[in-house]
Amino acid sequence: VAAAPPAIETDAVVIGAGPVGLFQVFQLGLQEIRAHVVDSLPRPGGQCVELYADKPIYDIPGIPVCTGQELTDRLLKQIAPFSAPLHLGDVVTQLVRGSDGGFEVSTRGGLHFRCRVLVIAAGVGAFAPRALKLAGIEGFEGRQVFHRFDLHAQAAGWAGQDVAVIGGGACAVAAALRLADSARVTLVHRRDDFDAPPAEVAQLRQRLAGGALRFIAGQASGFEEADGRLRALTVLDTDSHEHRIPADAVLVALGLSPKLGPIADWGLALDRKQLVVDTETFQTGERGIFAVGDINTYPGKKKLILCGFHEATLAAFAAAALVHPERAAPLQYTTTSPKLHRLLGV
Amino acid sequence: VAAAPPAIETDAVVIGAGPVGLFQVFQLGLQEIRAHVVDSLPRPGGQCVELYADKPIYDIPGIPVCTGQELTDRLLKQIAPFSAPLHLGDVVTQLVRGSDGGFEVSTRGGLHFRCRVLVIAAGVGAFAPRALKLAGIEGFEGRQVFHRFDLHAQAAGWAGQDVAVIGGGACAVAAALRLADSARVTLVHRRDDFDAPPAEVAQLRQRLAGGALRFIAGQASGFEEADGRLRALTVLDTDSHEHRIPADAVLVALGLSPKLGPIADWGLALDRKQLVVDTETFQTGERGIFAVGDINTYPGKKKLILCGFHEATLAAFAAAALVHPERAAPLQYTTTSPKLHRLLGV
Repeated sequence: VAAAPPAIETDAVVIGAGPVGLFQVFQLGLQEIRAHVVDSLPRPGGQCVELYADKPIYDIPGIPVCTGQELTDRLLKQIAPFSAPLHLGDVVTQLVRGSDGGFEVSTRGGLHFRCRVLVIAAGVGAFAPRALKLAGIEGFEGRQVFHRFDLHAQAAGWAGQDVAVIGGGACAVAAALRLADSARVTLVHRRDDFDAPPAEVAQLRQRLAGGALRFIAGQASGFEEADGRLRALTVLDTDSHEHRIPADAVLVALGLSPKLGPIADWGLALDRKQLVVDTETFQTGERGIFAVGDINTYPGKKKLILCGFHEATLAAFAAAALVHPERAAPLQYTTTSPKLHRLLGV
Repeated sequence: VAAAPPAIETDAVVIGAGPVGLFQVFQLGLQEIRAHVVDSLPRPGGQCVELYADKPIYDIPGIPVCTGQELTDRLLKQIAPFSAPLHLGDVVTQLVRGSDGGFEVSTRGGLHFRCRVLVIAAGVGAFAPRALKLAGIEGFEGRQVFHRFDLHAQAAGWAGQDVAVIGGGACAVAAALRLADSARVTLVHRRDDFDAPPAEVAQLRQRLAGGALRFIAGQASGFEEADGRLRALTVLDTDSHEHRIPADAVLVALGLSPKLGPIADWGLALDRKQLVVDTETFQTGERGIFAVGDINTYPGKKKLILCGFHEATLAAFAAAALVHPERAAPLQYTTTSPKLHRLLGV
């Protein structure tokens, strides 16, 4: 039996690597508070990158226009002096208050942190693959049904098999095209319209016309199993005809959907799924637990990135009073403070 | 007798063209609120340009480093779509509540506005020339003593005269050098050390050595008048010797100092010279009068530019409820809203 890895000792854990979580690292850093960041997505940027990586944002003060990806890159550069580890593709699942007033924080991926301060910058929640809703099919997850898959690693294993791909986005289209050469592919999407790059959609239409794979506009309505194996999906098309699709593997690519997840179970005050904070410290009702960005609420709250930047700033000042209670903390300016210059390495 | 010019009708007047006042224009613009801006300084940027135009700022979110001037230039570009007139070198002096609930706003320069909303983004107050403190000398202001002067326009008038220049900054050094060719100049500064570009300081030292002008390290301690004219200044040098300096003109260049000014007289609640606001709307106790940036205070307040950006944003939403009460205003995003794209001209 392997021993559990030792807990990571840090001042703060930030949940969420979106723009506000990243700027939180910056403001904590100016307060000499070391932070680790955990995010469910495989890359930093949060909604900003997941939902509009290449779409222009016009209301970041002093940046007349930038994309979500550009904003993320700028923030990553800005927080670089603080070298905060980003733990991506992982989700904080457990939070326990320690006897010393600090927290023990655990992740699904097996990380354990001991910290003084937790900042929840989780936006609309942890992004997870939207599930195929067919009662009982979850028993096949990871064997024949895949809500997460890696084409590069898994395509060979599906060669010569019947594969159903569910979805109409870029990921579904790419998977269907990639597998069409080696497997018998049926693509299922609720309508004959795809949200993928035009070149890939054109290629899909060409290959559908050539019979390289099959498409049904409809929705999975059931499945068949025999001897503990999934055998087929039933799909109801848009004319209400039922189709039986043989399926050795079902790849679900219905996009990502955010879920508040375990945060809802920590006993924090919620108002319509938002964490209630005060506007002096952006602390929740629990001492040491802060909430910033789209996940919080207070009178006047607007879900804007620039408001989250302000919230993260005041949260960092309040966190400093907890982490460094021995120090008085007069406001210092990055333009003039030798101490802040040293922290920033400038 | 000339008739008073007609009042300028607008939705909002913003006092202050610092970074927060400029971003206020942006957020008001997104709410379809037309704004005019008034600032005491001759150029936009406020403290940011007046005090650290060329010094780096590191804590503007998404901008790892920029100078005060660069930040100002970026904000001017960002607000360009709204074409808000900037009235520079002018000071709002009078505020009267109209019978319709709006305001009449007057400036020292003779402008009159009628507006629904006033946003005070005046930072540490209106910058005004720091005064030469000699009891009674104010009676010569504008005739022989000049706290504001325009060398280009006035130098010829001082030709052949005795001119005292008071101060040790760039403005004082430039004035002394400029007038040394045509007038008998004495430069007075409290110490033999000048805060001006090195090349100009070098030139000054060279010309002092050559006798083109005179320098006294000391402070003006009195003056002589005769027949209603100022005749001389008395200067106490650093060794406590008194010097009599003939003076037909005294140019005072002691730098700028901010003053809350008339704002203190409008009956708004103050806490240590800051305007008290609530954090939901950033409105003062007076309906329609908002305060954002360094001039306001509320629990948790930090005098940081990025906090002012947030404050200006919530103030704009609250102002919209006053200016456009007929419209419900759901939050729209600059990334996705066709209406905001139209307003931004993108």
